[in-house]
Amino acid sequence: MGVTNLPVSPLAPKSFPELPEVGGVELTTFALGLYSGTSRDDLLVVHFPNGAAPGGVFTTSSTRSADVDWCRSALKSSEVRARALVVNAGNSNAFTGQAGIEKNRATTAAVVGLAGCLDTNVFLAATGVIGEPLPPTRVADGVRAAWPALGMPNWEKAANAIRTTDTFAKASGATTEIEGRAVNIVGIAKGSGMIAPNMATTLNYVFTDAPLSAKAAQALIARYCDLTYNCITVDSDTSTSDTLMLFATGASGGETIYDPDDPRLEGLRTKLHAVLKDLALQIVRDGEGARRLIEINVIGAADDHAARVIGASIANSPLVKTAMAAGDANWGRIVMAVGKSGEVVERDSLAIWFGDHQVAKDGARAPDYSEAKASQAVSGELVRVRVDAGVGDGQATVWTCDLTEGYVKINGAYRS
Amino acid sequence: MGVTNLPVSPLAPKSFPELPEVGGVELTTFALGLYSGTSRDDLLVVHFPNGAAPGGVFTTSSTRSADVDWCRSALKSSEVRARALVVNAGNSNAFTGQAGIEKNRATTAAVVGLAGCLDTNVFLAATGVIGEPLPPTRVADGVRAAWPALGMPNWEKAANAIRTTDTFAKASGATTEIEGRAVNIVGIAKGSGMIAPNMATTLNYVFTDAPLSAKAAQALIARYCDLTYNCITVDSDTSTSDTLMLFATGASGGETIYDPDDPRLEGLRTKLHAVLKDLALQIVRDGEGARRLIEINVIGAADDHAARVIGASIANSPLVKTAMAAGDANWGRIVMAVGKSGEVVERDSLAIWFGDHQVAKDGARAPDYSEAKASQAVSGELVRVRVDAGVGDGQATVWTCDLTEGYVKINGAYRS
Repeated sequence: MGVTNLPVSPLAPKSFPELPEVGGVELTTFALGLYSGTSRDDLLVVHFPNGAAPGGVFTTSSTRSADVDWCRSALKSSEVRARALVVNAGNSNAFTGQAGIEKNRATTAAVVGLAGCLDTNVFLAATGVIGEPLPPTRVADGVRAAWPALGMPNWEKAANAIRTTDTFAKASGATTEIEGRAVNIVGIAKGSGMIAPNMATTLNYVFTDAPLSAKAAQALIARYCDLTYNCITVDSDTSTSDTLMLFATGASGGETIYDPDDPRLEGLRTKLHAVLKDLALQIVRDGEGARRLIEINVIGAADDHAARVIGASIANSPLVKTAMAAGDANWGRIVMAVGKSGEVVERDSLAIWFGDHQVAKDGARAPDYSEAKASQAVSGELVRVRVDAGVGDGQATVWTCDLTEGYVKINGAYRS
Repeated sequence: MGVTNLPVSPLAPKSFPELPEVGGVELTTFALGLYSGTSRDDLLVVHFPNGAAPGGVFTTSSTRSADVDWCRSALKSSEVRARALVVNAGNSNAFTGQAGIEKNRATTAAVVGLAGCLDTNVFLAATGVIGEPLPPTRVADGVRAAWPALGMPNWEKAANAIRTTDTFAKASGATTEIEGRAVNIVGIAKGSGMIAPNMATTLNYVFTDAPLSAKAAQALIARYCDLTYNCITVDSDTSTSDTLMLFATGASGGETIYDPDDPRLEGLRTKLHAVLKDLALQIVRDGEGARRLIEINVIGAADDHAARVIGASIANSPLVKTAMAAGDANWGRIVMAVGKSGEVVERDSLAIWFGDHQVAKDGARAPDYSEAKASQAVSGELVRVRVDAGVGDGQATVWTCDLTEGYVKINGAYRS
C-alpha cells in the first residue's frame, strides 16, 4: 500500500484558508512511516495543557474501529475532560481485534506518562486500510518522539497529517465573540471516499477556546453535525472510523457556559455551523473522482426526515451521479430515485428543477421544458437540483458529487 | 436517443437457450421505430387465445409507470384473466402524466377490438427513457399492424424486442410434469441497469401451460420472485417499471389447481424457481459494464431478513464493487459494508471467506490469511463471498456484479 499520488480535485478551494489562533491548543505532527515509499507525516498529536471540554459523534457502524470504541467510552467517564488527541493515518485500526485494543492501551499509556493525566483524557483515532494489524507500540513510540515538538498549531501540517486519499488538506475557521471576548474556532477534516455519514463521518476535529461545558460541547457538535456531515454522501459507504469531535478549551476566558441554547452562544452557534458546513462540503469537493458538486434541495416532503431520505436516495443513486458526470440533464433518473426512496411522494404533483429551470411539473415533463436550459444547468462545477415532493412541509438539503470513471479507477488501484 | 451498440457482456451465456413449446401462447414482434436510426423490433404482442391465469409482482416505486398502475389494477378485477400482453421498449411511459394513461387506454382498446375480450384482460408494460411523452396511439397502431402475424412463439425475437441496454437476449425454459402430463415453462427478461429489485424488477414474463388458478399463479410468482429477483442488484437503483408476471394457460390439460402448495405442483415449483433464478442471474451477468458475477452468501444473521439486508449492503457497496472490478481482495471493505448495514452483527465473531479461503475470523484477519489465495479467489468471472455474522441462524444469498469504468461510460452516454 503506497500513498496516493492523485491530482488535486478541480473542486478544491484555491488555497489553504487563513485561520485564527485558538487558545489552549498545542500540536505537532510526525512521520510514523505507515505509508511506504514516502516520508509524509502520518501522526497528529494535539495537547490541551489546561484541558478541554470534549463532545463527539461517531460512526454507527457495527464494525467500528477500536479507536471509536475507546472515544465513546471515554466520553462516558464521570468527569469527562480532554487532555490530548492522537490521530494516525495509514492504518484504521479497525477490525484488528485484540491487537487494536493493545495499540490503544499502549498509546494512552504513553500520553498519560507525558501529560500527567488520566487515560480517559486521551482521545484516539486512526484512518487508512481496514483489518491490517498495527504493531501495538508503533503509535505510542511516535507520540513519545513527537511530544517535545508540541507548540503553536500549524493547522496546515495538522490537516495534511490525517489525509489518506484526500487530494487536498481541509480546514475551516471563524471568529466570533462571547460577552465581548473574542472566541475562535478552527476545524480540520479528512475524507474523500467511504463517505455516507450516519451520526458523523471520517475524521474531523474542531477546536475552540470558548468556555463550554462538556454537555454543551456535546449538544452543539451533535446538532450541527446533523445539518452538515449527516447531509453529505460521496458513495453511500459508511466508514468504520467516522469521528467528529469538538474540543472547547475555555482559553478565551469567561465563565463556563452549560446550556447549548444560552443566548450568549448565538454567535458561536452560527459560526460553528458554518465551519462544519464548510468542512463537510470540502469533503464532497474532494469526493473520489469528483468533477461536480451537487446540491439537492428537497421541499414539500411529509417531514424533514422524509426530505432527508429522499435527498439521500437521489444523492446515492449511481444512475443520477453518472448522468451528472456526463453533464446529461437526465431528470427521469431523479424521478426514479425519488420513487425508490420509500418515502411518501405524490407522483402526480411532483416537481423538479435543475438550477432555476423547471424540468418536471404535476407528475410529467414541464410544459416549458427546454433541453438546452436543462443541460446548461447541469454543466458547471456546481449543480443545483430541487425537488418538491408535493406532500407536506418537510425540507432538507443534501450534498454529493458526481460518479466518474475516476472513482472506479481510484478504488480499484488503492487498497484504502 | 439511439439504440445502444454495446459489446456483448463477457458473462453472457454462450448461446440463446433451447426452449420448449408452451401451449396456448401466440406472439409476434414489430418495429414501432421508437429507437431512431435502427429498424429493430421494439414491440412484443402476446395473445392467449383461450386465456391464461395471470400472477404478477411490480415495482414498489412511488413514481411507477402508468403501465404498472394498469397491471396492478387489472390483477384486482373480480374475474382476473389474461388474454393479451403488450410490451414496448424505447419509452417507459413512466412519469408521463395524462399522456401515459391515454396511451394505455388506446392500446387496450385496440386489443379489445382484435381479441374480443375485456380491457382488464390486457396487460401492458413499457421500458426505456423516463418522462418522454409518447403519442397516445403509437403503440395501439403497432398492435393493429402486428396482430395478423401472431403465431407460434419465436422466443428469441420476443426476448430481443424488449431489450434496452441489454447486450444479449435473456430467456430460460424447463419442462416438468403434472399428473403424468408434460408441462412447459418459458421465461423472457430484460434488464441491465437500474436493477435493485423490490418486489420485482425490470420486465420479465414467464409462460406455462400448467393449469393454475390465478391465485396459485400469483402465490408462486411472488414466492420465487422473493428468492431470485429480489436477491439481485446491479446498481441499487430501482426501476419505475419493474414487472414480473406469470401466465398459466392450462393448455397442458388436467384440472385447474388452486393451491400453490398442492403436492402435484412439486415439479413445477422446482422448475419455476430454477427458471426465475436463471433469468435473474442473466440480468446480473448483463449488468452494465460487468466483468464479474458476485455471489454473496450470508449466514449466522439474526434472521433471514437480516441476512438479506447484510447481503444487499455488501452487494450495493461501490467500494466493494470497484475492488472486485480490480480483482483486489480488499476484504476490509466487506467488513465496512457489513458494519453499515444497520443489522445486528457480532463484530468480534464475524468471519469472512473469499471462495473457500477464510480471510477474517473472530473479528480480525484470519491467522492463515494468504494474500495470494484471497486474490486468486476474486480473480475469476464468478466470485463467491461468504459472511458469518455470528449472531443467529438467518441466511440469504444475494447476487451482484462488479462496478467498472464501463458502467460509468454507459450511463453517461445513453439516456436510458
